[in-house]
Amino acid sequence: MSWNYRTPGIPEEYFITGNVPITKTEVRVISLSKLKLTEDLVVLDIGCGTGSVTVEMGLLCPNGLVYSIDSNEEAIELVNKNVERFQLNNVNIIKGEAPEALPTTAFDRIFIGGGSKNIVEIVDYVHKHLKTGGIVVANTILLESTYNLLKILSEKGFKDIECINVNISKAATVPGWMMKAQNPIYIISALK
Amino acid sequence: MSWNYRTPGIPEEYFITGNVPITKTEVRVISLSKLKLTEDLVVLDIGCGTGSVTVEMGLLCPNGLVYSIDSNEEAIELVNKNVERFQLNNVNIIKGEAPEALPTTAFDRIFIGGGSKNIVEIVDYVHKHLKTGGIVVANTILLESTYNLLKILSEKGFKDIECINVNISKAATVPGWMMKAQNPIYIISALK
Repeated sequence: MSWNYRTPGIPEEYFITGNVPITKTEVRVISLSKLKLTEDLVVLDIGCGTGSVTVEMGLLCPNGLVYSIDSNEEAIELVNKNVERFQLNNVNIIKGEAPEALPTTAFDRIFIGGGSKNIVEIVDYVHKHLKTGGIVVANTILLESTYNLLKILSEKGFKDIECINVNISKAATVPGWMMKAQNPIYIISALK
Repeated sequence: MSWNYRTPGIPEEYFITGNVPITKTEVRVISLSKLKLTEDLVVLDIGCGTGSVTVEMGLLCPNGLVYSIDSNEEAIELVNKNVERFQLNNVNIIKGEAPEALPTTAFDRIFIGGGSKNIVEIVDYVHKHLKTGGIVVANTILLESTYNLLKILSEKGFKDIECINVNISKAATVPGWMMKAQNPIYIISALK
């Protein structure tokens, strides 16, 4: 499988999926745009799930490096398969809990794929390991995670904190055009 | 002004704006992703308004060519200023009504920035001038435009017709985090 377009936005059905969340295409392209990627960045995907953001980051940063972590066995299997499927050789996959299992690398960009019980420790890690001028982007679903993350980012002194809520419906032809809703997602971004 | 990122998504405030619509950043990046751009494409922006999609297309297709048309005097002024602002030299700006004033060029991609009283004639033009395998993407606001466009695209035999509805809210700090809604937009895409 290849994606030779200049624009990100790989359809979900291009990925090998399982019982692990996948970042929906439209939310993924908005999240990637907030990350402001360039070809040679060193980036981290925390809670990579199926690996759709990891794959797009790998394609967008061909001269960079992507680190991806998930604690879930099936997620690690899927992200490995999807990285192989898109023939990427710039991805390091880590099985383990964030932040304990994360490397001491300095990152240009960090993506957090969802809320976590360790969010305080994760933001501590992000604050320590994100380079000055680096960007962190997170997707959250729960109001608890959304509010906590905004609060912690503010307290830590992150700048330009932005929070958007995205509601997408997609038409299914059944036989008329019926809009089917996806769940609302928050996309939070901030600058160190 | 420059945008040296690999990911599209230029913030609205980077553009010179006036009393002419501007495609909001999040809707813009989803629309661009549906266009599946590559570096050397010949693309058309019908109803270019402020020129935000034109500018992103110009940046994403550096070895290609962008044609932009609008009938509004102020739009033409703004798109000219924004194309100059981002130092693009691959954009042809046309003042006039679509489809009459459009060139007889064959296009790889066509973006329609909004509904139009000439939508039947515009889709006729798109059908004639879009290459086989080319993609058309439209943003619509009115249900009339949305439904009409879906109907005409179906009747004309376009394939893989997709319609998504996008609702974005963005937090303003006032002093709490208050989500402020943008108007819902439909993004329609189809393959010739």
